[in-house]
Amino acid sequence: MKLIENWFSERYSDNLELSFRIKDLLLSVKTDYQRIDVFDTYDFGTLLTIDGTVQMTQFDEYVYHEMITMVPASFLNENYSGKALIIGGGDGGAARRLLDVGFKQIVNVEIDNHVVEVSKRFYPDLASSFSDPRVKLIIGDGIEYARTTSEKFDIVIIDSTDPEGPAEGLFSEEFYANVEKLLTDDGVMVTQSGSPYYQPHALKMAVSGMGKVFGSVRTYVAFIPTYPSGFWSFTMGSRKGLGKVRELPTGRYFNSEVLEGCMKLPEFVKKLINEIT
Amino acid sequence: MKLIENWFSERYSDNLELSFRIKDLLLSVKTDYQRIDVFDTYDFGTLLTIDGTVQMTQFDEYVYHEMITMVPASFLNENYSGKALIIGGGDGGAARRLLDVGFKQIVNVEIDNHVVEVSKRFYPDLASSFSDPRVKLIIGDGIEYARTTSEKFDIVIIDSTDPEGPAEGLFSEEFYANVEKLLTDDGVMVTQSGSPYYQPHALKMAVSGMGKVFGSVRTYVAFIPTYPSGFWSFTMGSRKGLGKVRELPTGRYFNSEVLEGCMKLPEFVKKLINEIT
Repeated sequence: MKLIENWFSERYSDNLELSFRIKDLLLSVKTDYQRIDVFDTYDFGTLLTIDGTVQMTQFDEYVYHEMITMVPASFLNENYSGKALIIGGGDGGAARRLLDVGFKQIVNVEIDNHVVEVSKRFYPDLASSFSDPRVKLIIGDGIEYARTTSEKFDIVIIDSTDPEGPAEGLFSEEFYANVEKLLTDDGVMVTQSGSPYYQPHALKMAVSGMGKVFGSVRTYVAFIPTYPSGFWSFTMGSRKGLGKVRELPTGRYFNSEVLEGCMKLPEFVKKLINEIT
Repeated sequence: MKLIENWFSERYSDNLELSFRIKDLLLSVKTDYQRIDVFDTYDFGTLLTIDGTVQMTQFDEYVYHEMITMVPASFLNENYSGKALIIGGGDGGAARRLLDVGFKQIVNVEIDNHVVEVSKRFYPDLASSFSDPRVKLIIGDGIEYARTTSEKFDIVIIDSTDPEGPAEGLFSEEFYANVEKLLTDDGVMVTQSGSPYYQPHALKMAVSGMGKVFGSVRTYVAFIPTYPSGFWSFTMGSRKGLGKVRELPTGRYFNSEVLEGCMKLPEFVKKLINEIT
Protein backbone atom coordinates (compact mmCIF):
# COMPACT_ATOMS: atom_id res chain seq x y z
CA MET A 1 0.00 0.00 0.00
CA LYS A 2 1.31 3.42 -0.93
CA LEU A 3 0.66 6.02 1.72
CA ILE A 4 -0.47 9.42 0.55
CA GLU A 5 2.39 11.90 0.60
CA ASN A 6 2.06 15.63 1.07
CA TRP A 7 4.42 17.97 -0.73
CA PHE A 8 4.89 21.70 -0.92
CA SER A 9 6.22 22.83 -4.29
CA GLU A 10 7.70 26.18 -5.11
CA ARG A 11 7.28 26.97 -8.78
CA TYR A 12 10.45 28.87 -9.75
CA SER A 13 9.14 29.43 -13.25
CA ASP A 14 6.59 27.75 -15.51
CA ASN A 15 9.22 25.12 -16.10
CA LEU A 16 11.02 24.40 -12.83
CA GLU A 17 9.96 23.61 -9.31
CA LEU A 18 11.47 22.48 -6.02
CA SER A 19 9.32 20.26 -3.79
CA PHE A 20 9.61 19.55 -0.07
CA ARG A 21 7.85 16.57 1.52
CA ILE A 22 5.87 17.84 4.48
CA LYS A 23 4.59 16.30 7.66
CA ASP A 24 1.96 18.97 8.20
CA LEU A 25 0.69 22.40 7.25
CA LEU A 26 1.02 24.22 10.56
CA LEU A 27 -0.59 27.53 9.62
CA SER A 28 -1.99 29.29 6.59
CA VAL A 29 -3.12 32.89 6.78
CA LYS A 30 -4.09 35.53 4.24
CA THR A 31 -3.09 38.95 5.56
CA ASP A 32 -3.72 42.42 4.10
CA TYR A 33 -0.39 42.10 2.29
CA GLN A 34 0.28 38.49 1.44
CA ARG A 35 -0.38 34.85 2.13
CA ILE A 36 1.77 33.19 4.78
CA ASP A 37 2.12 29.41 5.13
CA VAL A 38 4.14 27.45 7.64
CA PHE A 39 4.98 23.80 7.02
CA ASP A 40 6.60 21.13 9.13
CA THR A 41 8.97 19.38 6.71
CA TYR A 42 10.98 16.16 6.97
CA ASP A 43 14.47 17.42 6.15
CA PHE A 44 14.32 21.17 6.63
CA GLY A 45 12.46 21.69 9.90
CA THR A 46 9.87 24.48 9.94
CA LEU A 47 9.50 26.11 6.53
CA LEU A 48 7.97 29.57 6.06
CA THR A 49 6.56 30.68 2.72
CA ILE A 50 5.12 34.00 1.61
CA ASP A 51 2.90 33.94 -1.48
CA GLY A 52 4.21 30.45 -2.23
CA THR A 53 7.87 31.46 -2.09
CA VAL A 54 10.24 29.93 0.45
CA GLN A 55 11.40 32.62 2.87
CA MET A 56 13.31 30.42 5.25
CA THR A 57 13.76 26.99 6.73
CA GLN A 58 15.25 25.99 10.05
CA PHE A 59 17.87 24.00 8.12
CA ASP A 60 19.52 26.90 6.31
CA GLU A 61 18.19 30.26 7.62
CA TYR A 62 21.59 30.90 9.16
CA VAL A 63 23.22 31.33 5.74
CA TYR A 64 20.92 34.14 4.64
CA HIS A 65 20.83 35.89 8.01
CA GLU A 66 24.56 35.73 8.61
CA MET A 67 25.37 36.91 5.12
CA ILE A 68 22.92 39.83 5.01
CA THR A 69 24.23 41.18 8.34
CA MET A 70 27.82 40.11 8.93
CA VAL A 71 29.22 41.05 5.52
CA PRO A 72 28.18 44.73 5.68
CA ALA A 73 28.93 44.84 9.43
CA SER A 74 32.50 43.81 8.64
CA PHE A 75 33.11 47.11 6.86
CA LEU A 76 32.18 49.47 9.71
CA ASN A 77 35.07 51.16 11.42
CA GLU A 78 35.75 50.64 15.12
CA ASN A 79 34.04 53.92 16.02
CA TYR A 80 30.69 53.06 14.51
CA SER A 81 27.75 54.10 16.65
CA GLY A 82 26.07 50.67 16.69
CA LYS A 83 22.78 51.76 15.13
CA ALA A 84 21.05 49.70 12.45
CA LEU A 85 17.82 49.91 10.49
CA ILE A 86 16.18 46.77 9.12
CA ILE A 87 13.38 47.13 6.60
CA GLY A 88 11.39 43.92 6.30
CA GLY A 89 12.95 41.13 8.34
CA GLY A 90 9.80 40.56 10.38
CA ASP A 91 11.03 37.11 11.35
CA GLY A 92 13.62 38.73 13.61
CA GLY A 93 16.55 36.79 12.16
CA ALA A 94 18.52 39.78 10.90
CA ALA A 95 18.04 41.66 14.18
CA ARG A 96 19.13 38.52 16.06
CA ARG A 97 22.48 38.41 14.21
CA LEU A 98 23.08 42.15 14.59
CA LEU A 99 22.59 41.85 18.35
CA ASP A 100 24.96 38.88 18.38
CA VAL A 101 27.71 40.96 16.77
CA GLY A 102 27.30 43.91 19.13
CA PHE A 103 24.81 46.38 17.67
CA LYS A 104 23.34 48.63 20.35
CA GLN A 105 20.21 50.09 18.80
CA ILE A 106 18.17 48.49 16.05
CA VAL A 107 15.03 49.84 14.42
CA ASN A 108 13.12 47.10 12.56
CA VAL A 109 10.31 48.26 10.28
CA GLU A 110 8.06 45.41 9.10
CA ILE A 111 4.90 46.09 7.16
CA ASP A 112 3.02 42.94 8.12
CA ASN A 113 2.44 42.24 11.79
CA HIS A 114 1.48 38.65 10.95
CA VAL A 115 5.06 37.86 9.94
CA VAL A 116 6.20 38.87 13.41
CA GLU A 117 3.47 36.87 15.12
CA VAL A 118 4.18 33.79 13.01
CA SER A 119 7.88 34.02 13.78
CA LYS A 120 7.26 34.39 17.52
CA ARG A 121 5.30 31.15 17.40
CA PHE A 122 7.43 29.07 15.03
CA TYR A 123 10.94 30.60 15.16
CA PRO A 124 11.17 31.79 18.78
CA ASP A 125 14.99 31.90 18.66
CA LEU A 126 14.89 34.47 15.88
CA ALA A 127 11.88 36.42 17.15
CA SER A 128 13.47 36.69 20.59
CA SER A 129 15.26 39.73 19.20
CA PHE A 130 11.95 41.63 19.39
CA SER A 131 11.85 41.31 23.18
CA ASP A 132 15.39 42.67 23.49
CA PRO A 133 15.40 46.27 24.75
CA ARG A 134 17.94 47.24 22.07
CA VAL A 135 15.40 46.49 19.32
CA LYS A 136 12.53 48.81 18.45
CA LEU A 137 9.93 47.12 16.26
CA ILE A 138 7.75 49.37 14.12
CA ILE A 139 4.85 47.85 12.22
CA GLY A 140 4.62 50.11 9.23
CA ASP A 141 5.73 50.96 5.72
CA GLY A 142 9.52 50.91 5.37
CA ILE A 143 9.44 53.13 2.30
CA GLU A 144 7.52 55.79 4.22
CA TYR A 145 9.80 55.37 7.24
CA ALA A 146 12.94 55.86 5.12
CA ARG A 147 11.40 58.96 3.53
CA THR A 148 10.50 60.66 6.79
CA THR A 149 12.79 59.65 9.64
CA SER A 150 15.59 61.95 10.75
CA GLU A 151 17.59 59.21 12.47
CA LYS A 152 21.00 58.07 11.22
CA PHE A 153 22.26 54.49 10.97
CA ASP A 154 25.57 52.70 10.39
CA ILE A 155 23.79 50.00 8.48
CA VAL A 156 20.49 49.81 6.63
CA ILE A 157 19.42 46.26 5.73
CA ILE A 158 16.68 45.64 3.19
CA ASP A 159 15.49 42.15 4.08
CA SER A 160 12.54 41.92 1.74
CA THR A 161 10.73 39.57 -0.58
CA ASP A 162 11.51 39.70 -4.31
CA PRO A 163 10.71 42.79 -6.42
CA GLU A 164 7.14 41.78 -7.25
CA GLY A 165 4.14 42.92 -5.23
CA PRO A 166 4.64 44.78 -1.94
CA ALA A 167 8.45 44.78 -2.14
CA GLU A 168 8.73 46.34 -5.60
CA GLY A 169 9.24 49.85 -4.20
CA LEU A 170 12.18 48.54 -2.17
CA PHE A 171 14.15 48.10 -5.42
CA SER A 172 13.59 51.68 -6.73
CA GLU A 173 16.09 54.50 -7.14
CA GLU A 174 13.83 56.84 -5.17
CA PHE A 175 13.87 54.49 -2.19
CA TYR A 176 17.65 54.01 -2.38
CA ALA A 177 18.09 57.81 -2.40
CA ASN A 178 16.08 58.06 0.80
CA VAL A 179 18.10 55.27 2.40
CA GLU A 180 21.35 56.97 1.44
CA LYS A 181 20.32 60.03 3.49
CA LEU A 182 19.89 57.86 6.59
CA LEU A 183 23.44 56.54 6.57
CA THR A 184 26.29 57.83 8.70
CA ASP A 185 29.37 59.01 6.77
CA ASP A 186 30.88 55.54 6.56
CA GLY A 187 27.53 53.74 6.58
CA VAL A 188 26.60 50.79 4.38
CA MET A 189 23.27 49.68 2.99
CA VAL A 190 22.60 46.17 1.79
CA THR A 191 19.72 44.49 0.01
CA GLN A 192 19.07 40.93 -1.03
CA SER A 193 19.17 40.99 -4.83
CA GLY A 194 17.92 37.59 -5.98
CA SER A 195 19.41 34.68 -7.92
CA PRO A 196 21.74 35.77 -10.72
CA TYR A 197 20.78 32.60 -12.62
CA TYR A 198 17.00 32.84 -12.44
CA GLN A 199 16.19 36.42 -11.40
CA PRO A 200 18.75 38.64 -13.10
CA HIS A 201 16.14 41.44 -13.09
CA ALA A 202 16.33 41.72 -9.28
CA LEU A 203 20.10 42.05 -9.38
CA LYS A 204 19.86 44.53 -12.25
CA MET A 205 17.28 46.65 -10.42
CA ALA A 206 19.42 46.76 -7.29
CA VAL A 207 22.72 47.48 -9.04
CA SER A 208 21.25 50.04 -11.40
CA GLY A 209 19.15 51.89 -8.79
CA MET A 210 21.92 51.90 -6.19
CA GLY A 211 24.48 52.89 -8.81
CA LYS A 212 22.66 56.20 -9.32
CA VAL A 213 22.75 56.99 -5.61
CA PHE A 214 25.92 55.53 -4.12
CA GLY A 215 29.56 56.19 -4.93
CA SER A 216 30.32 52.49 -4.52
CA VAL A 217 28.16 49.42 -5.22
CA ARG A 218 29.38 45.89 -4.47
CA THR A 219 27.58 42.59 -5.05
CA TYR A 220 28.37 39.43 -3.10
CA VAL A 221 26.97 35.91 -3.19
CA ALA A 222 26.16 32.94 -0.99
CA PHE A 223 25.04 29.32 -1.32
CA ILE A 224 21.45 29.04 -0.03
CA PRO A 225 20.09 25.60 -0.95
CA THR A 226 16.37 26.32 -0.42
CA TYR A 227 16.32 29.45 -2.59
CA PRO A 228 15.96 29.26 -6.39
CA SER A 229 19.16 27.86 -7.97
CA GLY A 230 20.90 27.78 -4.57
CA PHE A 231 22.88 30.84 -5.64
CA TRP A 232 21.89 34.10 -4.00
CA SER A 233 23.13 37.66 -4.36
CA PHE A 234 23.24 40.65 -2.03
CA THR A 235 24.23 44.16 -3.05
CA MET A 236 25.84 46.81 -0.85
CA GLY A 237 25.98 50.56 -1.35
CA SER A 238 28.24 53.07 0.37
CA ARG A 239 29.34 56.62 -0.30
CA LYS A 240 33.11 56.17 -0.46
CA GLY A 241 33.65 52.48 -1.01
CA LEU A 242 34.23 49.80 1.57
CA GLY A 243 37.09 50.39 3.93
CA LYS A 244 39.28 48.45 6.30
CA VAL A 245 37.81 45.18 7.50
CA ARG A 246 36.77 44.64 11.11
CA GLU A 247 37.16 41.10 12.43
CA LEU A 248 33.79 39.58 13.36
CA PRO A 249 33.22 36.30 15.17
CA THR A 250 32.84 33.20 13.00
CA GLY A 251 29.29 32.06 12.26
CA ARG A 252 28.05 28.72 10.96
CA TYR A 253 28.52 29.91 7.36
CA PHE A 254 30.32 33.25 7.66
CA ASN A 255 34.04 33.45 8.41
CA SER A 256 36.85 35.76 7.35
CA GLU A 257 37.56 33.65 4.26
CA VAL A 258 33.93 33.75 3.17
CA LEU A 259 34.05 37.54 3.54
CA GLU A 260 36.90 37.64 1.04
CA GLY A 261 35.54 34.98 -1.28
CA CYS A 262 31.91 36.13 -1.49
CA MET A 263 32.82 39.21 -3.54
CA LYS A 264 34.78 37.21 -6.13
CA LEU A 265 32.05 36.89 -8.73
CA PRO A 266 31.66 34.35 -11.54
CA GLU A 267 32.26 35.84 -14.96
CA PHE A 268 28.59 35.72 -16.03
CA VAL A 269 27.62 37.72 -12.92
CA LYS A 270 30.31 40.31 -13.62
CA LYS A 271 28.93 40.59 -17.15
CA LEU A 272 25.36 41.05 -15.88
CA ILE A 273 26.62 43.86 -13.67
CA ASN A 274 28.80 45.42 -16.36
CA GLU A 275 25.87 45.57 -18.77
CA ILE A 276 24.27 48.00 -16.33
CA THR A 277 27.14 50.12 -15.08
CA MET B 1 -8.85 23.13 -20.54
CA LYS B 2 -5.65 22.21 -18.77
CA LEU B 3 -3.09 20.68 -21.07
CA ILE B 4 -1.21 17.69 -19.80
CA GLU B 5 2.28 18.67 -18.67
CA ASN B 6 5.31 16.42 -18.66
CA TRP B 7 7.91 16.77 -15.94
CA PHE B 8 11.16 15.06 -15.06
CA SER B 9 11.80 15.02 -11.32
CA GLU B 10 15.06 14.24 -9.63
CA ARG B 11 14.46 12.91 -6.14
CA TYR B 12 17.33 14.30 -4.04
CA SER B 13 16.14 12.39 -1.00
CA ASP B 14 12.86 10.87 0.18
CA ASN B 15 11.86 14.40 1.07
CA LEU B 16 13.08 16.76 -1.64
CA GLU B 17 12.90 16.87 -5.40
CA LEU B 18 13.66 19.23 -8.26
CA SER B 19 11.39 19.05 -11.32
CA PHE B 20 11.98 20.25 -14.86
CA ARG B 21 9.11 20.71 -17.32
CA ILE B 22 9.99 18.85 -20.49
CA LYS B 23 8.99 19.13 -24.10
CA ASP B 24 10.01 15.60 -24.93
CA LEU B 25 11.91 12.51 -23.87
CA LEU B 26 14.50 12.28 -26.64
CA LEU B 27 16.14 9.00 -25.68
CA SER B 28 16.04 6.40 -22.95
CA VAL B 29 18.47 3.52 -22.89
CA LYS B 30 19.44 0.88 -20.36
CA THR B 31 23.11 -0.01 -20.81
CA ASP B 32 25.23 -2.65 -19.07
CA TYR B 33 26.14 -0.03 -16.47
CA GLN B 34 23.27 2.39 -16.04
CA ARG B 35 20.15 3.97 -17.42
CA ILE B 36 20.61 7.05 -19.58
CA ASP B 37 17.78 9.47 -20.39
CA VAL B 38 17.89 12.61 -22.50
CA PHE B 39 15.14 15.22 -22.25
CA ASP B 40 14.36 18.34 -24.19
CA THR B 41 13.43 20.88 -21.50
CA TYR B 42 11.88 24.33 -21.67
CA ASP B 43 14.42 26.37 -19.73
CA PHE B 44 17.57 24.25 -19.64
CA GLY B 45 17.97 22.94 -23.19
CA THR B 46 18.97 19.30 -23.51
CA LEU B 47 19.17 17.56 -20.15
CA LEU B 48 21.10 14.31 -19.61
CA THR B 49 20.37 12.05 -16.66
CA ILE B 50 22.07 8.86 -15.51
CA ASP B 51 20.04 6.60 -13.23
CA GLY B 52 17.62 9.48 -12.68
CA THR B 53 20.32 11.93 -11.62
CA VAL B 54 20.96 15.12 -13.61
CA GLN B 55 24.43 14.96 -15.16
CA MET B 56 24.25 18.10 -17.21
CA THR B 57 22.06 20.58 -19.02
CA GLN B 58 22.92 22.87 -21.89
CA PHE B 59 22.07 25.82 -19.63
CA ASP B 60 24.76 25.29 -17.03
CA GLU B 61 27.21 22.54 -18.12
CA TYR B 62 29.89 25.21 -18.51
CA VAL B 63 30.09 25.78 -14.77
CA TYR B 64 30.93 22.18 -13.94
CA HIS B 65 33.25 21.65 -16.89
CA GLU B 66 35.17 24.89 -16.43
CA MET B 67 35.57 24.37 -12.72
CA ILE B 68 36.70 20.71 -12.86
CA THR B 69 39.39 21.55 -15.44
CA MET B 70 40.48 25.19 -15.15
CA VAL B 71 41.00 25.30 -11.40
CA PRO B 72 43.54 22.43 -11.27
CA ALA B 73 45.06 23.56 -14.60
CA SER B 74 45.78 26.95 -13.00
CA PHE B 75 48.29 25.34 -10.65
CA LEU B 76 50.54 23.71 -13.25
CA ASN B 77 53.87 25.41 -13.79
CA GLU B 78 54.83 26.84 -17.17
CA ASN B 79 56.91 23.75 -18.02
CA TYR B 80 54.09 21.25 -17.68
CA SER B 81 54.07 18.60 -20.37
CA GLY B 82 50.44 19.13 -21.41
CA LYS B 83 49.23 15.60 -20.68
CA ALA B 84 45.94 14.90 -18.95
CA LEU B 85 43.95 11.83 -17.95
CA ILE B 86 40.17 12.02 -17.59
CA ILE B 87 38.35 9.14 -15.93
CA GLY B 88 34.64 9.24 -16.68
CA GLY B 89 33.70 12.37 -18.61
CA GLY B 90 32.23 10.41 -21.51
CA ASP B 91 30.28 13.48 -22.62
CA GLY B 92 33.56 15.05 -23.79
CA GLY B 93 33.01 18.31 -21.87
CA ALA B 94 36.10 18.07 -19.67
CA ALA B 95 38.32 17.13 -22.64
CA ARG B 96 36.81 20.05 -24.60
CA ARG B 97 37.89 22.57 -21.93
CA LEU B 98 41.36 21.06 -21.55
CA LEU B 99 41.91 21.39 -25.29
CA ASP B 100 40.67 24.99 -25.11
CA VAL B 101 43.31 25.84 -22.49
CA GLY B 102 46.17 24.24 -24.39
CA PHE B 103 46.55 20.60 -23.33
CA LYS B 104 48.41 18.58 -25.94
CA GLN B 105 47.60 14.98 -25.13
CA ILE B 106 44.50 13.76 -23.35
CA VAL B 107 43.57 10.19 -22.47
CA ASN B 108 39.86 9.86 -21.67
CA VAL B 109 38.77 6.56 -20.12
CA GLU B 110 34.98 6.12 -20.06
CA ILE B 111 33.42 2.85 -19.00
CA ASP B 112 30.16 3.21 -20.92
CA ASN B 113 30.32 3.69 -24.67
CA HIS B 114 26.67 4.74 -24.68
CA VAL B 115 27.52 7.97 -22.83
CA VAL B 116 29.90 8.87 -25.66
CA GLU B 117 27.36 8.01 -28.35
CA VAL B 118 24.60 9.97 -26.61
CA SER B 119 26.86 12.99 -26.26
CA LYS B 120 27.90 12.85 -29.94
CA ARG B 121 24.23 13.02 -30.85
CA PHE B 122 22.93 15.56 -28.32
CA TYR B 123 25.98 17.59 -27.25
CA PRO B 124 28.07 17.70 -30.43
CA ASP B 125 30.05 20.74 -29.22
CA LEU B 126 31.31 18.80 -26.22
CA ALA B 127 31.77 15.45 -27.97
CA SER B 128 33.74 17.14 -30.76
CA SER B 129 36.75 16.71 -28.47
CA PHE B 130 36.71 12.98 -29.30
CA SER B 131 37.45 13.66 -32.96
CA ASP B 132 40.43 15.84 -32.05
CA PRO B 133 43.74 14.05 -32.70
CA ARG B 134 45.04 15.19 -29.30
CA VAL B 135 42.39 13.11 -27.53
CA LYS B 136 42.61 9.35 -27.14
CA LEU B 137 39.30 7.81 -26.06
CA ILE B 138 39.45 4.45 -24.30
CA ILE B 139 36.22 2.62 -23.54
CA GLY B 140 37.14 0.72 -20.42
CA ASP B 141 37.42 0.63 -16.66
CA GLY B 142 39.18 3.71 -15.28
CA ILE B 143 40.10 1.93 -12.06
CA GLU B 144 41.84 -0.82 -14.01
CA TYR B 145 43.50 1.74 -16.30
CA ALA B 146 44.88 3.72 -13.34
CA ARG B 147 46.19 0.50 -11.79
CA THR B 148 48.05 -0.68 -14.87
CA THR B 149 49.17 2.19 -17.09
CA SER B 150 52.75 3.39 -17.00
CA GLU B 151 52.00 6.81 -18.49
CA LYS B 152 52.43 10.04 -16.52
CA PHE B 153 50.06 13.01 -16.47
CA ASP B 154 50.08 16.62 -15.27
CA ILE B 155 46.43 16.36 -14.36
CA VAL B 156 44.12 13.48 -13.56
CA ILE B 157 40.43 14.42 -13.55
CA ILE B 158 37.83 12.14 -12.00
CA ASP B 159 34.63 13.23 -13.71
CA SER B 160 32.32 10.58 -12.34
CA THR B 161 28.82 10.05 -11.01
CA ASP B 162 28.29 10.04 -7.23
CA PRO B 163 29.84 7.35 -5.00
CA GLU B 164 27.00 4.86 -5.35
CA GLY B 165 26.98 2.09 -7.93
CA PRO B 166 29.67 1.96 -10.63
CA ALA B 167 31.53 5.06 -9.38
CA GLU B 168 31.98 3.89 -5.79
CA GLY B 169 35.50 2.58 -6.44
CA LEU B 170 36.47 6.02 -7.74
CA PHE B 171 36.20 7.37 -4.17
CA SER B 172 38.47 4.75 -2.55
CA GLU B 173 41.92 5.17 -1.04
CA GLU B 174 43.26 2.32 -3.18
CA PHE B 175 42.18 4.11 -6.35
CA TYR B 176 43.64 7.43 -5.20
CA ALA B 177 46.96 5.69 -4.47
CA ASN B 178 47.04 4.39 -8.02
CA VAL B 179 46.23 7.85 -9.39
CA GLU B 180 48.98 9.41 -7.33
CA LYS B 181 51.54 7.20 -9.09
CA LEU B 182 50.41 8.53 -12.47
CA LEU B 183 51.11 12.16 -11.67
CA THR B 184 54.19 14.11 -12.70
CA ASP B 185 56.15 15.68 -9.81
CA ASP B 186 54.00 18.82 -9.72
CA GLY B 187 50.86 17.08 -10.95
CA VAL B 188 47.36 17.59 -9.57
CA MET B 189 44.39 15.26 -9.35
CA VAL B 190 40.84 16.48 -8.93
CA THR B 191 37.54 14.76 -8.30
CA GLN B 192 33.99 16.04 -8.05
CA SER B 193 33.04 15.50 -4.40
CA GLY B 194 29.30 16.19 -4.18
CA SER B 195 27.10 18.70 -2.37
CA PRO B 196 28.39 19.59 1.10
CA TYR B 197 24.77 20.26 2.16
CA TYR B 198 23.12 17.05 0.96
CA GLN B 199 25.95 14.58 0.29
CA PRO B 200 28.59 15.20 2.95
CA HIS B 201 29.57 11.51 2.63
CA ALA B 202 30.96 12.10 -0.88
CA LEU B 203 33.09 14.99 0.33
CA LYS B 204 34.20 12.98 3.36
CA MET B 205 35.18 9.96 1.22
CA ALA B 206 37.21 12.15 -1.12
CA VAL B 207 38.95 14.19 1.56
CA SER B 208 39.65 11.22 3.78
CA GLY B 209 40.85 8.88 1.00
CA MET B 210 42.97 11.53 -0.70
CA GLY B 211 44.34 12.69 2.67
CA LYS B 212 45.99 9.28 3.13
CA VAL B 213 47.72 9.48 -0.23
CA PHE B 214 48.53 13.12 -0.99
CA GLY B 215 50.66 15.62 0.89
CA SER B 216 48.12 18.35 0.17
CA VAL B 217 44.33 18.16 -0.23
CA ARG B 218 42.26 21.24 -1.13
CA THR B 219 38.48 21.48 -1.59
CA TYR B 220 36.84 24.17 -3.70
CA VAL B 221 33.23 24.95 -4.54
CA ALA B 222 30.99 26.27 -7.31
CA PHE B 223 27.36 27.29 -7.86
CA ILE B 224 25.71 24.69 -10.13
CA PRO B 225 21.96 25.34 -10.17
CA THR B 226 20.83 21.97 -11.61
CA TYR B 227 22.77 19.88 -9.08
CA PRO B 228 21.36 19.10 -5.62
CA SER B 229 21.37 22.25 -3.44
CA GLY B 230 23.13 24.24 -6.19
CA PHE B 231 26.33 24.01 -4.13
CA TRP B 232 28.96 21.65 -5.47
CA SER B 233 32.41 20.66 -4.25
CA PHE B 234 35.57 19.46 -5.96
CA THR B 235 38.66 18.18 -4.19
CA MET B 236 42.26 18.38 -5.42
CA GLY B 237 45.27 16.35 -4.34
CA SER B 238 48.92 17.07 -4.96
CA ARG B 239 52.21 15.92 -3.49
CA LYS B 240 53.69 19.22 -2.34
CA GLY B 241 50.76 21.62 -2.22
CA LEU B 242 49.59 23.96 -4.91
CA GLY B 243 52.15 26.36 -6.27
CA LYS B 244 52.32 29.57 -8.20
CA VAL B 245 49.24 30.35 -10.23
CA ARG B 246 49.28 30.36 -14.04
CA GLU B 247 46.92 32.85 -15.70
CA LEU B 248 44.26 31.06 -17.76
CA PRO B 249 41.79 32.69 -20.14
CA THR B 250 38.45 33.74 -18.67
CA GLY B 251 35.53 31.35 -19.14
CA ARG B 252 31.81 31.98 -18.74
CA TYR B 253 32.03 31.15 -15.01
CA PHE B 254 35.75 30.84 -14.30
CA ASN B 255 37.97 33.88 -13.93
CA SER B 256 40.98 34.75 -11.79
CA GLU B 257 38.73 36.03 -8.98
CA VAL B 258 36.70 32.81 -8.93
CA LEU B 259 39.97 30.89 -8.69
CA GLU B 260 40.79 32.79 -5.51
CA GLY B 261 37.28 32.78 -4.10
CA CYS B 262 36.35 29.14 -4.74
CA MET B 263 38.75 27.87 -2.07
CA LYS B 264 37.37 30.20 0.63
CA LEU B 265 35.00 27.72 2.27
CA PRO B 266 31.95 28.38 4.44
CA GLU B 267 32.51 27.53 8.07
CA PHE B 268 30.28 24.42 8.03
CA VAL B 269 32.30 22.99 5.13
CA LYS B 270 35.57 23.67 6.94
CA LYS B 271 34.12 21.84 9.94
CA LEU B 272 33.08 18.86 7.82
CA ILE B 273 36.64 18.67 6.50
CA ASN B 274 38.26 19.19 9.90
CA GLU B 275 36.24 16.33 11.39
CA ILE B 276 38.11 14.07 8.99
CA THR B 277 41.63 15.43 8.95
